[in-house]
Amino acid sequence: MTNLKVISEYQCFAGKVGFYSHASSTCHGEMRFAVYQPPQASQKPVPVLYFLSGLTCTEENFMVKAGAQRYAAEYGLMLVAPDTSPRNTGIAGEDDDWDFGTGAGFYVDATTEPWKAHYQMYSYIVQELPTLINANFPTQSEKQGIFGHSMGGHGALVCAMRNPHLYKSVSAFAPITAPMRCPWGEKAFSRYLGTNEEAWRSYDASELVKQLGYHSSILIDQGTADKFLTSQLLPDVFAQVCAEVKQPLNLRYQQDYDHSYYFIASFMADHIRHHAIALG
Amino acid sequence: MTNLKVISEYQCFAGKVGFYSHASSTCHGEMRFAVYQPPQASQKPVPVLYFLSGLTCTEENFMVKAGAQRYAAEYGLMLVAPDTSPRNTGIAGEDDDWDFGTGAGFYVDATTEPWKAHYQMYSYIVQELPTLINANFPTQSEKQGIFGHSMGGHGALVCAMRNPHLYKSVSAFAPITAPMRCPWGEKAFSRYLGTNEEAWRSYDASELVKQLGYHSSILIDQGTADKFLTSQLLPDVFAQVCAEVKQPLNLRYQQDYDHSYYFIASFMADHIRHHAIALG
Repeated sequence: MTNLKVISEYQCFAGKVGFYSHASSTCHGEMRFAVYQPPQASQKPVPVLYFLSGLTCTEENFMVKAGAQRYAAEYGLMLVAPDTSPRNTGIAGEDDDWDFGTGAGFYVDATTEPWKAHYQMYSYIVQELPTLINANFPTQSEKQGIFGHSMGGHGALVCAMRNPHLYKSVSAFAPITAPMRCPWGEKAFSRYLGTNEEAWRSYDASELVKQLGYHSSILIDQGTADKFLTSQLLPDVFAQVCAEVKQPLNLRYQQDYDHSYYFIASFMADHIRHHAIALG
Repeated sequence: MTNLKVISEYQCFAGKVGFYSHASSTCHGEMRFAVYQPPQASQKPVPVLYFLSGLTCTEENFMVKAGAQRYAAEYGLMLVAPDTSPRNTGIAGEDDDWDFGTGAGFYVDATTEPWKAHYQMYSYIVQELPTLINANFPTQSEKQGIFGHSMGGHGALVCAMRNPHLYKSVSAFAPITAPMRCPWGEKAFSRYLGTNEEAWRSYDASELVKQLGYHSSILIDQGTADKFLTSQLLPDVFAQVCAEVKQPLNLRYQQDYDHSYYFIASFMADHIRHHAIALG
């Protein structure tokens, strides 16, 4: 494999889960990601579905906990799960907070010192990583979908709306839908992007849907027992803007579910099917 | 709930994953376990399927990684996953080894000092835990099955063969099938049970199947890329004894699979179905 280091690989649902690292030119350091190659990939190129994880996660959580491989094997989709930030950059204080710095890249291209030298997660996800994946795995590069959880749901919505030609489908579990209006987003954006809020708009799903919209229906699942629902996630804000601009949205409130992977696993089948239909 | 402390509960596949602790009279200390209640359990009592985990695991691994809840919800089975040993007993050296002591109870009733005061995992699994489960959850107590992985596969085979009236079905992923003949088993048995190997026979599946057999077919999945296959697990030994005594055995060698939960998850559907059929 070109430029890729294999960390470990595991047979899974007749396909293969693998963990890899590479020297990222975008983030100026080693980055890690996980790939699930469905059994179909040994015969022919397959569509690719990117999953962006939430705060504190690594490239491992999704592959271990979400139970997505079974469905990816059924529909013949490759799954790619990147890490949530650069690590071990040497930036002072990078490990101090659980909701900023390491494990909390927020899928933005930082413009402030000292973060901008490494924290270029938006460009990494949209450009460098897909190029690397397409060069090293049997993909149909024109067939990409993206989804994610919490901070990663925010990332998926932002990546998809800003690049509708690159992503044929988008969905999210409990996404941060209006980061400019919640504490997690305000903290991350002010420190990665500076205090000029104009610069924040291009990373806020509720702003982007107004400016850009998306070419197809957005699927969102949200647990009603999620402790971050009204303080951080704010799906009602996003739903209201979608209604105003007539953006098709399938926002499903799931009774009694919380913010955990037990919630994600419970509705994974529906999300994979949503993407599989769009990816043909 | 009687005598139970709720640690945490999560909605999952329209049912509930819960983690609980209680004061065990068998192990003389606090023990933990996990339960998945399928959606059917809110309407009527359901059969119970016990899963025994492998070395180093806690009550969490199975619920997080095995992807069993989806199938348990489909068939209406309760899942119970106990911890793999007593913990924090104060016994000197209990945490020194990863394959003995904490996380490595081996599902035996220890007879040696200092272990016998706490390490009574066989009686805990067969007697105390089911009594507690039946008193606190909506179970059909006469409908029990048992399965497990590695050390827990050994435990499941032993519990089922010695108590065929209690367990209507048994299966295992990569079980230690002849512990008297492998380093893990020799280490554990000699220290928990003493050096008289006669006492080991009642905890060795390959001995028990000769002595007792089992009333129905045993399902075992074993990965061919499992690094413990020929040194510790020895399914060929078990298969040969089963053939000699005409014990029905469905031993499936799964090409390229290893010892991980990616292997377990891949064949979970077949195991849950095996038990669901037996449990009616």
